[in-house]
Amino acid sequence: MTERSISDLGFARVDHDREARNGVPEVVFGEGKQADQISAIVGRLIARHQRALVTRLDAERAERVLRDHPHGHYDPISRLLCWGAPPRRLPGTVAVICAGTSDLPVAEESAGTLEWLGADVARLNDVGVAGIDRLLAHRESLTRADVLIVIAGMEGALPSVVTGLVRNPVIAVPTSVGYGASLQGVTALLGMLSACATGMSVVNIDNGFGAAWQAASILSL
Amino acid sequence: MTERSISDLGFARVDHDREARNGVPEVVFGEGKQADQISAIVGRLIARHQRALVTRLDAERAERVLRDHPHGHYDPISRLLCWGAPPRRLPGTVAVICAGTSDLPVAEESAGTLEWLGADVARLNDVGVAGIDRLLAHRESLTRADVLIVIAGMEGALPSVVTGLVRNPVIAVPTSVGYGASLQGVTALLGMLSACATGMSVVNIDNGFGAAWQAASILSL
Amino acid sequence: MTERSISDLGFARVDHDREARNGVPEVVFGEGKQADQISAIVGRLIARHQRALVTRLDAERAERVLRDHPHGHYDPISRLLCWGAPPRRLPGTVAVICAGTSDLPVAEESAGTLEWLGADVARLNDVGVAGIDRLLAHRESLTRADVLIVIAGMEGALPSVVTGLVRNPVIAVPTSVGYGASLQGVTALLGMLSACATGMSVVNIDNGFGAAWQAASILSL
Amino acid sequence: MTERSISDLGFARVDHDREARNGVPEVVFGEGKQADQISAIVGRLIARHQRALVTRLDAERAERVLRDHPHGHYDPISRLLCWGAPPRRLPGTVAVICAGTSDLPVAEESAGTLEWLGADVARLNDVGVAGIDRLLAHRESLTRADVLIVIAGMEGALPSVVTGLVRNPVIAVPTSVGYGASLQGVTALLGMLSACATGMSVVNIDNGFGAAWQAASILSL
Amino acid sequence: MTERSISDLGFARVDHDREARNGVPEVVFGEGKQADQISAIVGRLIARHQRALVTRLDAERAERVLRDHPHGHYDPISRLLCWGAPPRRLPGTVAVICAGTSDLPVAEESAGTLEWLGADVARLNDVGVAGIDRLLAHRESLTRADVLIVIAGMEGALPSVVTGLVRNPVIAVPTSVGYGASLQGVTALLGMLSACATGMSVVNIDNGFGAAWQAASILSL
Amino acid sequence: MTERSISDLGFARVDHDREARNGVPEVVFGEGKQADQISAIVGRLIARHQRALVTRLDAERAERVLRDHPHGHYDPISRLLCWGAPPRRLPGTVAVICAGTSDLPVAEESAGTLEWLGADVARLNDVGVAGIDRLLAHRESLTRADVLIVIAGMEGALPSVVTGLVRNPVIAVPTSVGYGASLQGVTALLGMLSACATGMSVVNIDNGFGAAWQAASILSL
Amino acid sequence: MTERSISDLGFARVDHDREARNGVPEVVFGEGKQADQISAIVGRLIARHQRALVTRLDAERAERVLRDHPHGHYDPISRLLCWGAPPRRLPGTVAVICAGTSDLPVAEESAGTLEWLGADVARLNDVGVAGIDRLLAHRESLTRADVLIVIAGMEGALPSVVTGLVRNPVIAVPTSVGYGASLQGVTALLGMLSACATGMSVVNIDNGFGAAWQAASILSL
Amino acid sequence: MTERSISDLGFARVDHDREARNGVPEVVFGEGKQADQISAIVGRLIARHQRALVTRLDAERAERVLRDHPHGHYDPISRLLCWGAPPRRLPGTVAVICAGTSDLPVAEESAGTLEWLGADVARLNDVGVAGIDRLLAHRESLTRADVLIVIAGMEGALPSVVTGLVRNPVIAVPTSVGYGASLQGVTALLGMLSACATGMSVVNIDNGFGAAWQAASILSL
Ligand SMILES: Nc1ncnc2c1ncn2[C@@H]1O[C@H](COP(=O)(O)O)[C@@H](O)[C@H]1O
Ligand SMILES: Nc1ncnc2c1ncn2[C@@H]1O[C@H](COP(=O)(O)O)[C@@H](O)[C@H]1O
Ligand SMILES: Nc1ncnc2c1ncn2[C@@H]1O[C@H](COP(=O)(O)O)[C@@H](O)[C@H]1O
Ligand SMILES: Nc1ncnc2c1ncn2[C@@H]1O[C@H](COP(=O)(O)O)[C@@H](O)[C@H]1O
Ligand SMILES: [Mg+2]
Ligand SMILES: [Mg+2]
Ligand SMILES: [Mg+2]
Ligand SMILES: [Mg+2]
Ligand SMILES: [Mg+2]
Ligand SMILES: [Mg+2]
Ligand SMILES: [Mg+2]
Ligand SMILES: [Mg+2]
Repeated sequence: MTERSISDLGFARVDHDREARNGVPEVVFGEGKQADQISAIVGRLIARHQRALVTRLDAERAERVLRDHPHGHYDPISRLLCWGAPPRRLPGTVAVICAGTSDLPVAEESAGTLEWLGADVARLNDVGVAGIDRLLAHRESLTRADVLIVIAGMEGALPSVVTGLVRNPVIAVPTSVGYGASLQGVTALLGMLSACATGMSVVNIDNGFGAAWQAASILSL
Repeated sequence: MTERSISDLGFARVDHDREARNGVPEVVFGEGKQADQISAIVGRLIARHQRALVTRLDAERAERVLRDHPHGHYDPISRLLCWGAPPRRLPGTVAVICAGTSDLPVAEESAGTLEWLGADVARLNDVGVAGIDRLLAHRESLTRADVLIVIAGMEGALPSVVTGLVRNPVIAVPTSVGYGASLQGVTALLGMLSACATGMSVVNIDNGFGAAWQAASILSL
Repeated sequence: MTERSISDLGFARVDHDREARNGVPEVVFGEGKQADQISAIVGRLIARHQRALVTRLDAERAERVLRDHPHGHYDPISRLLCWGAPPRRLPGTVAVICAGTSDLPVAEESAGTLEWLGADVARLNDVGVAGIDRLLAHRESLTRADVLIVIAGMEGALPSVVTGLVRNPVIAVPTSVGYGASLQGVTALLGMLSACATGMSVVNIDNGFGAAWQAASILSL
Repeated sequence: MTERSISDLGFARVDHDREARNGVPEVVFGEGKQADQISAIVGRLIARHQRALVTRLDAERAERVLRDHPHGHYDPISRLLCWGAPPRRLPGTVAVICAGTSDLPVAEESAGTLEWLGADVARLNDVGVAGIDRLLAHRESLTRADVLIVIAGMEGALPSVVTGLVRNPVIAVPTSVGYGASLQGVTALLGMLSACATGMSVVNIDNGFGAAWQAASILSL
Repeated sequence: MTERSISDLGFARVDHDREARNGVPEVVFGEGKQADQISAIVGRLIARHQRALVTRLDAERAERVLRDHPHGHYDPISRLLCWGAPPRRLPGTVAVICAGTSDLPVAEESAGTLEWLGADVARLNDVGVAGIDRLLAHRESLTRADVLIVIAGMEGALPSVVTGLVRNPVIAVPTSVGYGASLQGVTALLGMLSACATGMSVVNIDNGFGAAWQAASILSL
Repeated sequence: MTERSISDLGFARVDHDREARNGVPEVVFGEGKQADQISAIVGRLIARHQRALVTRLDAERAERVLRDHPHGHYDPISRLLCWGAPPRRLPGTVAVICAGTSDLPVAEESAGTLEWLGADVARLNDVGVAGIDRLLAHRESLTRADVLIVIAGMEGALPSVVTGLVRNPVIAVPTSVGYGASLQGVTALLGMLSACATGMSVVNIDNGFGAAWQAASILSL
Repeated sequence: MTERSISDLGFARVDHDREARNGVPEVVFGEGKQADQISAIVGRLIARHQRALVTRLDAERAERVLRDHPHGHYDPISRLLCWGAPPRRLPGTVAVICAGTSDLPVAEESAGTLEWLGADVARLNDVGVAGIDRLLAHRESLTRADVLIVIAGMEGALPSVVTGLVRNPVIAVPTSVGYGASLQGVTALLGMLSACATGMSVVNIDNGFGAAWQAASILSL
Repeated sequence: MTERSISDLGFARVDHDREARNGVPEVVFGEGKQADQISAIVGRLIARHQRALVTRLDAERAERVLRDHPHGHYDPISRLLCWGAPPRRLPGTVAVICAGTSDLPVAEESAGTLEWLGADVARLNDVGVAGIDRLLAHRESLTRADVLIVIAGMEGALPSVVTGLVRNPVIAVPTSVGYGASLQGVTALLGMLSACATGMSVVNIDNGFGAAWQAASILSL
């Protein structure tokens, strides 16, 4: 590990080597960081890698970071702030499918991350299992996607049904949509992990970012 | 409340008035009771009502109770022990639908209870959402059932899908089938309660009996 | 499934076929949706079905939606926003019973939904088990209701007691009223599911809407 | 604290001073102790106080302890093993009320402990809220008890109802009777703690012993 | 139950009979009720019983209720609002003991309720087990109290220690003071229920009111 | 869906279409099924697909099933019972890495499933983070694997560390190894889902089978 | 215990004896106390011990306390408010290591407390396991620290890895950083307690203060 | 890391370097390992380090391992199996203190591990807080111990009290002793983590081994 591979900012240690190791530069987790801390980290990332991504960032801090690094783009739905273009387009397509309109912020976090990583995205929104024909109407196109990210809150049943219909890998994302017994997404999470359908794996509640990253790493193989 | 309406056995107080109030005599919860306690209670019930039902009873205690009250029938799958015939047949049909072969004991607890209560039962087993076409092949008959009892373990997604397909009331029963994140049925239970499909209600984990009772009370209206 | 049966708005896929399948048009879950999204969905529902219902909506967004679709009615207690009349009156009566004054918002969500669905409602408020005579004074009228929706927070004991008094189906609704060990309604929920009384089923915490829907589907049989 | 007030057995330190401090000698918690350990502790207790009580003891170890200290009495239902008589009778009466036959072992742990402590006990078994008239038939006698111990599993609703009927203190005991959502007694415990009725307090799941002790300390005032 | 025993306000059913049954008029639970609802209920209570108590009420609503019923007293620490004097002084003394300064609001809810009920209170604040000598310095006076209410947050160890020192009944109140593993009071609650000291019972988290009520009912025996 | 695509055995509905849809025939979940039920299902699978796999099967039932279908192989460590060869070898390699010797049964469930599915497996056992050099010694080979299955119990930290070292997708499997705070694998599960390393997804506790399936579906792309 | 050893302020009982017993004067827990209460307690502490420390204090109340006792210092990151210098420097060094930038407030609570207690601190920030080389680059210096405080949120894997690298005691501090399955720090807490690495112990979530105190008590030996 | 530092047994990778890194050879976790696996690992450890320790081992497997490596010693209370003597005696003394007789197995796991590591142990058993004078009688000797391991089940209050009495570091060990609300030790664990006393840290439920290791590493400083 050479000296150049880490930028030591005192409060942060930017891991430049990550692009070599993982294929993509470090992404900044926006929660619990101050705008000026994010700005300093992003400065180092852009200087070295010509691109950067910050997740889970509210509009107010995003605006302040954009003042220092103006050529970025902030999306208030997905709460992603990003700079730069991917070095290459990835082969294949990722379907990003969500159960209800209230799950859109998570779906857009997946879609936006995938686009920043260079992947093609096919969106399919509001096809929850309470009206299964809405999903079955797209059966053909589901089987054509190389990877499927399936997002649902409440009881989180959609990924089981989708996984039963396709051959390619499904990544399930539980969301915190719902109330009472849905326990801020814990119920959907446990349900997806217990699913009887085989061929799916699960990421954290509302973690559209993590699902997108793994989908891209599969496309990159 | 007249004297005759309760049989006081010391360890139990048999509530004969329940037939007048609820339409069916008291049913005996078999867990945590000794065979001779059950035998004494059943004796009083048969004497007054000419029929009795014991739930959640293992084969060994069932055999000992049957020695005292031989004209009953024990089913080792549902673990129900019963005597006597229903006073009348109920109108309509209850569909009892289960997701997997491992859910059969609970499905049979529902079916057996319904038959003892005088209802017609249509069984549909092993139609879990991992192979949704198995369910959709029966779409017509599902819509014809007056009440639907839908039973599933693991992530418990089946009731949501069924409820989305029909107009009549669905009673969902989570089962303890599964491992790890299925938390002995708690995950399926919470999932069913959080379901986005409207028109279903839920009973306790593995409570095929309770679902059957509710279905029969609907048919009796 | 014909083209006409789904309105694709991009962020939502309105399921017009649901009226044919389930007997009632899709109801909009108000949480996590923006006022303009709700407005667009409601526009499609009114155009096709001449009526619409939005649940769990705060006053501010309700007002904005009503600007686009002025012939609706918003109730700040139940947080329901609705348009149009039911196509037919349902036979029979649903009793809506709640344990305490603090449970009123949930009770009114049930009552309001039932009225929108065309059912007759008999309200009985503040009859919790700490003063059981308040309930027993209504014993006669309880036994006359076709379906009973019983709503309680804290320990949620009321549905058990009511179920023991009647023959017709009881739908229990736990509420998030209480503090400490009542765990935002989880305690009442688990208690209702574990109830020793037979003939009741349970819906999600604070889900007065879901209980009403199932009650109406029973009346429709 | 004088030397004589503690018997140091190495693995245990018998607290003889407790009789002076708390009014009753130390009681031995039978779980996780070997028969010979219990025997040695009991030997010291009988020598100094002429009486002893061991709780939660299975029949096999009880038999072995009784070989060393034969003038005791073991009850297999309550799993109590005791020696000696109370130094005085306590004034008043404790009602021990349980919801179902399956709660009997806990009810008998209360009743047996009370008798060993010198209190008069009035037992009332199997009066759970599913048949509320069984309880109301005893309304008069309930109001006459000085302290009421109310025991229930499943949803644990009985103490709320009893507390609403009486003026004197109620001690509620949740039991582990039930399955699924009753979570080995946790649901009944949380329900009793959340109860809307005022004038009751709660002890641990299945802790008939602790409730009896507190009831006796109230009678002793 | 005569007509006069219930005031039906529509949203509430005031249970006037409770004074006869329980010895004290119904107390109003202030959470989740609007100021005008409380005002109406309090009006009926004062008219019939010449006194009233509202718990868990914030200053803003208290002020609005006091405008309608001005002869009451609001305490911002305990959040109690009360009117009228107890019909008689109760014999004996209740010690109200708390572990830390942050537990004061709960301790004052107990003390204020006891005073409204006519009991004498001895306060002992900030004697948590981290400095056990502060508690032991009061050992004498602890043993003189007729009933002890012991209040603690965090790990909730104080009631165990106090119970080991006295002969009279202890009522333990867990508080929501603490962070992280103290889980808003659940840890203290579970700890108190599991306590090895015998002679104590437990009420809900932060329920100083309930403990006071139970203590008063013991003094009233 | 043609008639031939489902074998209806009454207690089971074998989904032959799954090979066409998902690329592999239905796999039998061995828990909660009787030996003769498994035997009947396996008979149908072998007849149609010339191969079959049963998971989570104890030695006793395995032996009984093998009597009916003798050309299979049972492995007592992984508890897998299988027949037949994969139709083709999959390209690439899956590394199966486990933290401790006690995790071997889960690792072998993954490895055995992969072999049955036609994938090449590279095993690396007992490289938990308490001795990180054991893992780092294999750093080169880790980066060469196409997919990595990383298995750990207790705190489940291994997948985070491995994911930080590689570019290709990681599937994490929590195990139930550990005691106390490891909560039968729930702690490892939650930890893996919360991991700060990006590029991994998670399956159910002890679900070596599910991870293998997902890995194979990635290799098949 | 002499009269002088406690300052009784009514709402608080300042334990001056603690310096003799524990080596350091009582520290004030800032949550749930009013500014004037803190001011009074701090007044007594400074008068007797010439120094004081308040933890978990927001800026607003800190400012008000500083008006009464101006020679203190408030740090908005750690939320510590302190006065006075340690009576002696402690021998040795404590390494304070944290996984991510978002964990800084807890790390600074540890570092600030240690400095107030007279210990030398070596800070190492943002060396989480997702980029393990950042940590390994400091392997030498880690082994030189006398005690190591290791702080991490999300899955909390860092302490396991550090403990495996060193010989001296590690105190692990879970933080509430993360979302979804990290359950406000409970996941990191449980993970650290379940760790396979030997030689570490754990304090409460976000309890940088407690870890520092124990580290100092080790240095003081 | 040289070749010699790891013994690769296929199912295990013995980490010989650990003695250099951590000061003590790897200890074998006995749960979930077969006797012959343990025997093989122990063989390598004895060959290289002349000593070995296996934890959590039942008598049956211990006996089989002792056949291969006869010069060891098995203690059925602590379930430790060990060979060899420590290379040097550690300075100072560790007090091992437990609350009740039922906690002895955990206390002996600590004491036995400490002795194998070369530390002097002072045992103090059965001094739980229900009889606080038993503990205070030893106040002097507590303050003399260099490190204190304090072990308790049920509500786990003992470590708080002990920590308040001493200046030196306390390591708290919750045990699974208790029933109902003690949740197999989780309640004691959470209580210890939430303790108001400063200067203690916590290890896993029943982990007497881990506490001993941490204590020895402190003595070794
Ligand atoms: N939304 C997210 N969910 C989970 N992990 C993330 C997210 N955003 C960034 N990360 C990861 O968090 C780590 C950075 O944490 P930090 O050092 O606190 O910025 C990197 O490994 C990122 O890949
Ligand atoms: N308050 C409510 N509770 C539970 N489900 C609801 C509620 N309101 C509407 N729904 C259901 O939620 C689904 C609509 O979700 P969405 O697509 O997000 O609007 C429909 O199936 C509705 O029947
Ligand atoms: N069944 C029981 N439940 C709760 N505490 C008990 C029980 N039996 C005895 N105890 C108490 O447990 C303590 C004795 O614990 P030990 O020293 O382990 O025998 C005494 O304080 C007893 O009062
Ligand atoms: N009783 C125990 N509790 C916790 N960790 C242990 C215990 N016994 C051994 N260990 C640790 O477990 C690891 C060995 O795990 P394994 O490779 O499965 O033998 C070593 O790091 C030991 O220090
Ligand atoms: Mg929708
Ligand atoms: Mg099947
Ligand atoms: Mg009321
Ligand atoms: Mg009964
Ligand atoms: Mg204090
Ligand atoms: Mg190992
Ligand atoms: Mg970082
Ligand atoms: Mg003892």
